[in-house]
Amino acid sequence: MSDFNDLPAHVWPRNAARQEDGVVTVAGVPLAEIADEYGTPVMVIDEDDFRSRCRDMAAAYGGGHNVHYASKSMLTRTIARWVDEEGLSIDVASEFELGIALRADFPADRVTAHGNNKSDRFLQDCVEYGVGHVVVDHPAEIETLDMIARSREKIQRVMVRVKPGVEAHTNEMIATAHEDQKFGFSLAAGSAWEAARACIRAENLELVGLHCHIGSQIFDAEGFSLAAERVLELYARIHNELGVTLPELDLGGGYGIAYTADEQPLDVATVAHDLLTAVDKTAAELGIESPAVLVEPGRAISGPAGVTVYSVGAIKDTVIGDGPGDTRRYVSVDGGMSDNVRPALYGAAYDGRVVGRFLDGEATRTRIVGSHCESGDILINEIGLPDDVVAGDLFAMAGTGAYSYSMSSNYNAFPKIPVVVVRAGKVTPMLRRQTVEDFLALEA
Amino acid sequence: MSDFNDLPAHVWPRNAARQEDGVVTVAGVPLAEIADEYGTPVMVIDEDDFRSRCRDMAAAYGGGHNVHYASKSMLTRTIARWVDEEGLSIDVASEFELGIALRADFPADRVTAHGNNKSDRFLQDCVEYGVGHVVVDHPAEIETLDMIARSREKIQRVMVRVKPGVEAHTNEMIATAHEDQKFGFSLAAGSAWEAARACIRAENLELVGLHCHIGSQIFDAEGFSLAAERVLELYARIHNELGVTLPELDLGGGYGIAYTADEQPLDVATVAHDLLTAVDKTAAELGIESPAVLVEPGRAISGPAGVTVYSVGAIKDTVIGDGPGDTRRYVSVDGGMSDNVRPALYGAAYDGRVVGRFLDGEATRTRIVGSHCESGDILINEIGLPDDVVAGDLFAMAGTGAYSYSMSSNYNAFPKIPVVVVRAGKVTPMLRRQTVEDFLALEA
Repeated sequence: MSDFNDLPAHVWPRNAARQEDGVVTVAGVPLAEIADEYGTPVMVIDEDDFRSRCRDMAAAYGGGHNVHYASKSMLTRTIARWVDEEGLSIDVASEFELGIALRADFPADRVTAHGNNKSDRFLQDCVEYGVGHVVVDHPAEIETLDMIARSREKIQRVMVRVKPGVEAHTNEMIATAHEDQKFGFSLAAGSAWEAARACIRAENLELVGLHCHIGSQIFDAEGFSLAAERVLELYARIHNELGVTLPELDLGGGYGIAYTADEQPLDVATVAHDLLTAVDKTAAELGIESPAVLVEPGRAISGPAGVTVYSVGAIKDTVIGDGPGDTRRYVSVDGGMSDNVRPALYGAAYDGRVVGRFLDGEATRTRIVGSHCESGDILINEIGLPDDVVAGDLFAMAGTGAYSYSMSSNYNAFPKIPVVVVRAGKVTPMLRRQTVEDFLALEA
Repeated sequence: MSDFNDLPAHVWPRNAARQEDGVVTVAGVPLAEIADEYGTPVMVIDEDDFRSRCRDMAAAYGGGHNVHYASKSMLTRTIARWVDEEGLSIDVASEFELGIALRADFPADRVTAHGNNKSDRFLQDCVEYGVGHVVVDHPAEIETLDMIARSREKIQRVMVRVKPGVEAHTNEMIATAHEDQKFGFSLAAGSAWEAARACIRAENLELVGLHCHIGSQIFDAEGFSLAAERVLELYARIHNELGVTLPELDLGGGYGIAYTADEQPLDVATVAHDLLTAVDKTAAELGIESPAVLVEPGRAISGPAGVTVYSVGAIKDTVIGDGPGDTRRYVSVDGGMSDNVRPALYGAAYDGRVVGRFLDGEATRTRIVGSHCESGDILINEIGLPDDVVAGDLFAMAGTGAYSYSMSSNYNAFPKIPVVVVRAGKVTPMLRRQTVEDFLALEA
């Protein structure tokens, strides 16, 4: 069994380390110092970790423009600037995400717009500001977008979102003709073909490719390759029947990360190599040109860069059964489902460590819970925390850079937590902590 | 089968009605008018519905002071004022909820403070402002609170939260000696007795009662009565061994409401009568005085008062199986898991209707989904929506007054939605819609 004081390198930020005095640093900054200055809970983002993962992805996929950072995982103007500086493209799924990216001077032509139900305003903004791709999702949207582009005398580049009939189910890829979800046009039922034809016919749209998405937390190329094969058949049909060669293929997101020590993160280079090889091979078999492959990682870029630092409060041992040792320790921290809803929402697992000092007690069956007035407010369902944890200890959770801040709420009127960036020994605030005044400012 | 245009009276606000032209009004205000003025999504709160439920509870439990509105279900200064004007008490579970209530001039002595991990700041504020009750939840908190009260030369009234060993499991009450959750002191393991003794011994605390909570969405008195019986045994022991008579018994929240037509709401008067009778009977059997019974409804007051009005966007029919008719219609609306996470988080069911006109199509297997970039973004998993629904229709969900705004997020950078109050034909804004500027204001 590994020492609880170790920080599994594949889970924690690349620049996380534990000092000789037991304090954990990220990019050379002790988390205890950040907790002192900004209070807890606080999220700390390792800028170099974030940027290095951008670069890994860009290298693996033949250039940053092929890699679309999913802004829904975490977006501020600072993050949009990092993504821009690393040369990546960016995905947005609302006029609001688009607005934040544009206010960071993100180049519109490297923006892709997503959504099953884009508002008219969103579509108008896309055309107005000249976003690089709009991924169309239903027939009425094709008409609306064409009309908007015509009224502005522009040609809007689009992709058609298709349901590839491949779904990620935990560790297994399921191939199916049906996909019972809200996104996209069906390959099997022929609506993807119809949508592609409609885009090609539309005077003010330019169809540049098809888009598919097979799920999240995927760890190998199998599912992506299977989806690519199915989608490329439609490329061949479009080529053969309509004489149109689609230059791009967007295989969506889903690149898995390790949230806990026993998970292994996706190997970006290997998956990319396998995937690109499969696409080339299939395209050759179909007698078509191999399209440029686009991918949309969010979690795999922002996730591992972030850690959330909490203070430990109430500690309680609870009898949970009749046998000897049928107890569970509840360790409360000063945040919870408001700053990270993923455990409650998805049953998501996380790694957590005491980061202000070494622990040397006995590993104890422990549940890390938040401070909300709800028994489902659990952050880590079970962890073998050493029994010498005490109130006031700093407890950090790794892998919180994606989908925690972006999905955070103000449940129990908890303010959104501050986010700081660390790099080369320096701390820069990115988001301040909310206050009750921020809530009251919304009151009419 | 009921006409889809009907509004089940036990689910919709008391002042909801459908006009002859098919438009639904609440308190005489057409929802279409509100949608026009405030945009969609928008939440509409029927003030008289909210207030009338306060009064029903107050009448059933011998006065408003015995009824503690759970602010976590929905809290603004306006709501705190309504609760105050109706004479109810209020529960808060953070210094932030307390701050909002106090800024509405809510009398501190009718505030009860809850939480498994109250911050020092929260406890200090409680003592400082003189909240009526602090419900203590773990041993260290008793010491801390006593110390804070001593330093300010005050006596703080407290209750001890106990685990009654009764849990609500859907429609069944489970009695158990164990409770594997974070709240309270165990009756069975003796820690509740120890906590009560500690509070009685503490010089600056005054123990006034015990508190228990058996779950949520409870529809009869059975579980409450069973919990009361168990807890009253500790009242008797405290009376007999320590000579202390505890004047109050807090049975927590959990009063169920009907979210869908086939559910029946809890009958407040009947449950109260059964419960108070059971408490009196048990107290008599134990030879102790019957304590005043306090209850903590949140959902049962704010829930039915609120409806959320969306605009219908993309409509898509999807093949989900091989048989004839194995299709599902996906109807997208312009909100989703950001403004109401309960369906995604708890699998919660809701009733929804088209509220801008009559529908007369054939009932069709339909899923109402939001606009977020996530396939789990479902608002109503299955509803038999008439097939003449079209884009632009107004679709409202009932029973959203509790735990939707208070748990709302900014996922996909969606702004929090506006909330308006309707009463006697008049609309008053309560919360304005957030904007991207509100997000940017948090950026450092």
